[in-house]
Amino acid sequence: MPKRLNMSRKKTIAIDMDNVLVDIETNWINWYERELGVRVTREAMRGIPEDQAFPDPEAARKLLYQPGFFRGAPLMEGALEALEELNREYEIYIVSAAMEFPNSLLEKHDWIAEHFPFISWRNIVLCGDKSVIATDYMIDDHLKNLDFCKGIPVLFTAGHNIHVTKYTRVNNWKEATALFKRYLVA
Amino acid sequence: MPKRLNMSRKKTIAIDMDNVLVDIETNWINWYERELGVRVTREAMRGIPEDQAFPDPEAARKLLYQPGFFRGAPLMEGALEALEELNREYEIYIVSAAMEFPNSLLEKHDWIAEHFPFISWRNIVLCGDKSVIATDYMIDDHLKNLDFCKGIPVLFTAGHNIHVTKYTRVNNWKEATALFKRYLVA
Repeated sequence: MPKRLNMSRKKTIAIDMDNVLVDIETNWINWYERELGVRVTREAMRGIPEDQAFPDPEAARKLLYQPGFFRGAPLMEGALEALEELNREYEIYIVSAAMEFPNSLLEKHDWIAEHFPFISWRNIVLCGDKSVIATDYMIDDHLKNLDFCKGIPVLFTAGHNIHVTKYTRVNNWKEATALFKRYLVA
Repeated sequence: MPKRLNMSRKKTIAIDMDNVLVDIETNWINWYERELGVRVTREAMRGIPEDQAFPDPEAARKLLYQPGFFRGAPLMEGALEALEELNREYEIYIVSAAMEFPNSLLEKHDWIAEHFPFISWRNIVLCGDKSVIATDYMIDDHLKNLDFCKGIPVLFTAGHNIHVTKYTRVNNWKEATALFKRYLVA
């Protein structure tokens, strides 16, 4: 029983946070260096799961549970301009699989409120598995999310996914904005 | 492009928290009495928006932002037994429109972890508007959620919705369990 997706009838996009809106790689590298004294390069993260790029993957994973880890993470380059633009033509939902890290929930809400004040709380979803999310498009860096998405998947490049070939890929927000402009007239 | 909803291929149910799993009416009445010295009856809540049942609706709404309001709320009668039973035959997602109250996010996660330890963090969704949630069924007490749900809506009785006639209604968890047993063989 198909029903319209939202009051505005704009097409909807689910946009992931970590590695898409949030530069979590840089944040993780910075935290690891500060806490464990070793600076990992972004190049070391290419083609492998992120935690495996660190000398001590378990110590790296523990950082994710530390207060402030998500709240202070830097914005991905170009994300603000892109969302301001896309928000005019699409109904944007920020959808993060944050539930594994309960202490991140408020931090993620507050991070969005700070960086994207034009995104309403109505358009934020913090969940576990994203297979229950139904939007027309989904921008994400993880196959575990895109594989079960009900709309059109768009893979956002992150170090760990550089070998993935199965979905339309965007390497940055400039490419993403251009792609979604094309979708508008398609 | 329909894709299967989950790995288990069980049918999915989105289950609301407040007034469905959480006895938020009782909680609200108790908090209002403790903070403002007046005890409102559940009967006073029938057929009107909940906050309007209180002598000072604005003061009542402010309680929702107080730390601990959601964390300590009582479980709805029969909810535990019902979810234990439904969880065997369905994939259950607890879906709460919690984002309006950012301080409730961690409280709601912790409340679920305490009362429903068999529900994984993967199956929890804290969101704003539920129109992006796609499950086979949705149990909720609010039309604003059921009207846009993509599956089969089931109205759970709460004081404020007693005059609603447009959806299949269950008055309590015993009726809900019986209904979902019938859906299994339908």
